[in-house]
Amino acid sequence: MSEANGNLVKRIFEDARFVRSLGIELLSFGHGWCETGVKILPALEQQHGLAHAGVIMTLADHTCGGAAASTAPEGQDVITVENKTSFLRPASASVLLCRAQVLRTGKRLIFVEAEVTSEGANDKVLIAKASSTLALIPLASKART
Amino acid sequence: MSEANGNLVKRIFEDARFVRSLGIELLSFGHGWCETGVKILPALEQQHGLAHAGVIMTLADHTCGGAAASTAPEGQDVITVENKTSFLRPASASVLLCRAQVLRTGKRLIFVEAEVTSEGANDKVLIAKASSTLALIPLASKART
Amino acid sequence: MSEANGNLVKRIFEDARFVRSLGIELLSFGHGWCETGVKILPALEQQHGLAHAGVIMTLADHTCGGAAASTAPEGQDVITVENKTSFLRPASASVLLCRAQVLRTGKRLIFVEAEVTSEGANDKVLIAKASSTLALIPLASKART
Amino acid sequence: MSEANGNLVKRIFEDARFVRSLGIELLSFGHGWCETGVKILPALEQQHGLAHAGVIMTLADHTCGGAAASTAPEGQDVITVENKTSFLRPASASVLLCRAQVLRTGKRLIFVEAEVTSEGANDKVLIAKASSTLALIPLASKART
Repeated sequence: MSEANGNLVKRIFEDARFVRSLGIELLSFGHGWCETGVKILPALEQQHGLAHAGVIMTLADHTCGGAAASTAPEGQDVITVENKTSFLRPASASVLLCRAQVLRTGKRLIFVEAEVTSEGANDKVLIAKASSTLALIPLASKART
Repeated sequence: MSEANGNLVKRIFEDARFVRSLGIELLSFGHGWCETGVKILPALEQQHGLAHAGVIMTLADHTCGGAAASTAPEGQDVITVENKTSFLRPASASVLLCRAQVLRTGKRLIFVEAEVTSEGANDKVLIAKASSTLALIPLASKART
Repeated sequence: MSEANGNLVKRIFEDARFVRSLGIELLSFGHGWCETGVKILPALEQQHGLAHAGVIMTLADHTCGGAAASTAPEGQDVITVENKTSFLRPASASVLLCRAQVLRTGKRLIFVEAEVTSEGANDKVLIAKASSTLALIPLASKART
Repeated sequence: MSEANGNLVKRIFEDARFVRSLGIELLSFGHGWCETGVKILPALEQQHGLAHAGVIMTLADHTCGGAAASTAPEGQDVITVENKTSFLRPASASVLLCRAQVLRTGKRLIFVEAEVTSEGANDKVLIAKASSTLALIPLASKART
């Protein structure tokens, strides 16, 4: 992975205020993959005391964005076209982890999928699975200060 | 729509802390539909200064939940099974509105779709379209304090 | 709608052997929409004697393609990026109709949705709803004879 | 996997006339997974001479059904609730293979995903990826003759 791609992935997480306001953290990434985590504080819960579907979708979407960005050609950025997330089990864990994996980077579109898991006593438990299409767009030239 | 259904819809919005923490407001609802809105404050933005896809999916998902709840049989609650959201245009507006409409309420599943729009100078602009499956589950009996 | 767009829509149906082999017929179309129908012969059924989900998805996908093609800029063709179809009711009817509607035609992507219905005694019944993304690609120059 | 589950998987393929009319073959299966293949004859092509998206979705959907059926509790059958398929590459191969894997079998719903691949000279190439929800329904009691 090029330094430019590494910087793009980091910047996508640093500059996304919504992701920071939820406490989503970039844990690790490489060419074509990205791993993140989030602590489920009460402000992230839905009416049954579980992580809200919106938190899970945000986590999956942004991690897919990170994985896609790690494969973007020089001078290009990524934006989500569509995301489908299936909710397999109630998200009752206190920490959710996410790993996104690029399935294919084309000339204009990137296909990515993501797994959201909780750490159980002995094992990872699959909470949700997402499938997303992203588009390559020109990297905004505006300098960030 | 029964009083029980009306109360369920209202409670789904009152009790979901994540939805309240984003400032999503229940605007109006009836049998099979629900309308909401959210002001896009900086904390809800992604790296390009637009509403984050996760905000849009949260808005769509919870509004679908409200619409589904308005049709739930007595003693039943709803939970999201899966959600697909397509992002048609950049969400640069300061306020996003959402209307969810039930397509079919079955014995165990409810199919709902939602449109997320921004108010333009003359017209509504379609920002995103979501399609979601929800499941009917027994209403938790636990009293709320 | 230009004559070129009209010809593209017609050709998409004439040249797709799979669509012809299923007996899917182009009924009507205009700028941004397309209507089709298919008679459910025994060869199109699944194990319970209903129209197979694959028939419904083929019908929805190709009708979305027709609607998208009606909006394609000069010299461009369309190809499906992804399709999600929700199955609302058993497809027990002898004829299925489909109407696809473009939600947005962008510079590179077209978002379309489609409804599959059966004609009941008094009313149309919604059998399935699809949501699809298509990409614009250069029109193949090869003449078809 | 019980004998009843094995019989259910086989029957799902034997009794689905549409799947037989496309030439889709059940190749192998076990608890939670199913593998199939189809030869892309001209009748299965779209207007560009590739396998039609509807063929790929049919293959993915039915193979998901086989995988889901292998995990269905005694006396239960499966039916597709929704299917999303992403088309990663043009399907120009003469044979397509599909492997479906159950992600979770719940009390009422089964989540499955499927990969459609072509056999290249040296390697499998991923053509499409599907994500599907199926519902458990009572097994029809009618005898088959």
